[in-house]
Amino acid sequence: MSQTPIILTGDRTTGPLHLGHYLGSLRARVQLQNEAKQFLLLADAQAMTDNVGKHQKVTDNVIEVALDYLAAGIDPEKSTIFIQSQVIELAELTQYLMNLVTVARLERNPTIKQEIVLRGFERDIPAGFLVYPVSQAADITAFKATLVPVGDDQLPMIEQTNELVRKFNNTVDKQVLVECKAVLSAVTRLPGVDGKAKMSKSLGNAIALGASPDEINKAIKMMYTDPNHLRVDDPGQVEGNVVFAFLDVFEPDTAKLDELKAHYRRGGLGDSVLKRLLNEHLQDVIAPIRAERERLAKDRGEMLNMLRRGTDKAREAAARTLSEVKGALGLNYFG
Amino acid sequence: MSQTPIILTGDRTTGPLHLGHYLGSLRARVQLQNEAKQFLLLADAQAMTDNVGKHQKVTDNVIEVALDYLAAGIDPEKSTIFIQSQVIELAELTQYLMNLVTVARLERNPTIKQEIVLRGFERDIPAGFLVYPVSQAADITAFKATLVPVGDDQLPMIEQTNELVRKFNNTVDKQVLVECKAVLSAVTRLPGVDGKAKMSKSLGNAIALGASPDEINKAIKMMYTDPNHLRVDDPGQVEGNVVFAFLDVFEPDTAKLDELKAHYRRGGLGDSVLKRLLNEHLQDVIAPIRAERERLAKDRGEMLNMLRRGTDKAREAAARTLSEVKGALGLNYFG
Repeated sequence: MSQTPIILTGDRTTGPLHLGHYLGSLRARVQLQNEAKQFLLLADAQAMTDNVGKHQKVTDNVIEVALDYLAAGIDPEKSTIFIQSQVIELAELTQYLMNLVTVARLERNPTIKQEIVLRGFERDIPAGFLVYPVSQAADITAFKATLVPVGDDQLPMIEQTNELVRKFNNTVDKQVLVECKAVLSAVTRLPGVDGKAKMSKSLGNAIALGASPDEINKAIKMMYTDPNHLRVDDPGQVEGNVVFAFLDVFEPDTAKLDELKAHYRRGGLGDSVLKRLLNEHLQDVIAPIRAERERLAKDRGEMLNMLRRGTDKAREAAARTLSEVKGALGLNYFG
Repeated sequence: MSQTPIILTGDRTTGPLHLGHYLGSLRARVQLQNEAKQFLLLADAQAMTDNVGKHQKVTDNVIEVALDYLAAGIDPEKSTIFIQSQVIELAELTQYLMNLVTVARLERNPTIKQEIVLRGFERDIPAGFLVYPVSQAADITAFKATLVPVGDDQLPMIEQTNELVRKFNNTVDKQVLVECKAVLSAVTRLPGVDGKAKMSKSLGNAIALGASPDEINKAIKMMYTDPNHLRVDDPGQVEGNVVFAFLDVFEPDTAKLDELKAHYRRGGLGDSVLKRLLNEHLQDVIAPIRAERERLAKDRGEMLNMLRRGTDKAREAAARTLSEVKGALGLNYFG
C-alpha cells in the first residue's frame, strides 16, 4: 500500500528568503507539491525562542516569507501554508513530548550543541531554545509527516523526532504518532557573496528573492573572487571563487562555462566579464519572482486570507492528531 | 482601588486527597471562595511530567480530586474548578514564557533541586519536569492571579513566576501579566501516620478524605507514638508522637489535651486510650465528607458536567489573557 507522502517543512520567519533558500528548498517544494501533501510552516513561534525583544522582526516577516513562497511558485491550493503560533495544538503536543526526553539528551543533540555555540548561549540557553527539537518533533508529528526535507546538519533532529515517536507509542502502547524520513536535498549550497560557506540574511551576504535590479548589481559587485587575481592577465583561481560557484548553478551552457574556467585559470579573463554574465542570469531568475512578489504584496488582505485558510486547514489536521494523542493518554474526559 | 483578589491554586491529580490536604489547603479554600475569585486547578498535565507510563493513574484521579473538593465544601458556583490539560492556552503561554528563562536558572530553582533529589532524577530530568515552574507560572499568570496559597517550600516558584512576569512585561514594554503574592498557609502540617514529616499518599502514610470507618481505625492503630513507651506505666514522650500531633489539631478541648499530655509524660496513660479519643474525632470529621463524597460519586455525569462548566469558564479567562499576550508580541495576525 503506497500512500501519498506527507511533507512538513518551512522556515523561521526572521527575514525574507534569498537565493540560497530558492535553490536549497523552495524550488524542490514547488515540485513536491504535485507529488505529496505538503505542509509549509511559517515558524514564528520557533523564531521567538532566540529573538526575545525582537518579536516584531519575527512577526513582520511572516507575510514576507509567505510572499516569497507564492512568488517562487508555491500554490496555496496545493500546499498548506500556515502560521505556527496560530496552531496552538503544536504547543500542546510539545508539552506532552517534553516529558519523554531528558534535559541531558537535549543537550547532547548535535544540532542544538552547534547552534548554542553559533548563538553564543553557552550556559545561558533559554529553556525555549533547548526544547526546540521537541517543538520541531511536535510540528512534524502533529501532521503525521512521513518526509521531512533537511540539510545533513539537521539529521539529528529527525533522529530525535523518531525517538520521541517510538517513546510516545510505547508509553501509550498504541501506534498513534508516525515516524518520518529525512529527505536530503540534492542541491549544492550557495555560498554567501562574501565567500562564507553559507548564504544568510543575518550575515548580510545574501541576495533576497525580491532584490531590485540595483541590489543584485551591488551584491555581484562585492562578490568574493580570487584575491590574488589582481590584474586581468594574472592566472586566477576558480575554486572558492564565489562568482564561479554561482555560475555553476546559473549558467546553463556547461561547455561555455568550462571554457570560461580554463580561460580564467590561464589568465586574461577579468572578473568584470564574469560578473556581467552572472548579473544577466541573476536578473533573469529574479525578475519574474520580484514582479510576482510585488503584485501579491499589493493585496495584503488577500495574503492574510490565504494564510488564514492554510492555518485553519493545518489546525484541523493537528487537532485530529491531538485528539488521538490525548485519547491515548486518557485525557479526553469530555468525549 | 481595592479589587477582589484572584486566587489560583490546585492539586496534582495523582491520588485522592487526604487529611493533610484538608487542613493544609482545602479548609482555607472553602473560606476563601467567599472572599476572592478562586480558580482551582486539577493539574493533570503537570502530574504527567513525572508520571510517564502512569497516565491512567493521573487521569483517573481527576474526578477523585474533584469529588474531594466538593465533599470538603468547595462550591463550584463560587470556585472555578477546571482541568489543566483542557485549557490549552496554558501550554501556549508556557511556550512563550520558556523563552524568558535560562536552563541554568531553572536548574538553580531550589524547589526543582529538591524535587529532583526526591524523585531520583539527577541528570535524567525529563525536560517537561525541568520546565514545570514555567508551566506553573503560566497557570498563575493566565488567570492574572494576585494571590497564590503555598507552603514555604514553594516560595521559590512564586519568585520565579514574578521574574517571568517582569521579563515578559519588559520585553513587550507593556503591563500585560500581573505579579502575584504568596499566601503562606498558617495551618500546621499534619505528619504522616508513620511519623514522617509529611502526610503523603505516595508514602502510604495518609488518611484519605473518603476513608471508611475501618480504614480510619486501621490508620490510627498503626500510628507512630513513642517507641520507648513500652508499658502503660512508663513515662511517654509527647514530642514527635503522631497521636498527639493529631490531637493538637482535632481535640477542641485544650485543657483536656494539656491534662492528657501531662499524664502521658508522667506515665500511666496508654496509647490505646489516646487512639480511641483520636478515632472518635477523626470519625466525626470524616463521616460527613465521606457521605457527601459517596453521594456525589453516584452521578459521574453530573460531575463531568460540573468540570466542563468550570473548564469552559477557565478557558475563557485564559483565552482573554492569551489574546493580550499574543497581541503584545504582534501575534494577532488575523485581528
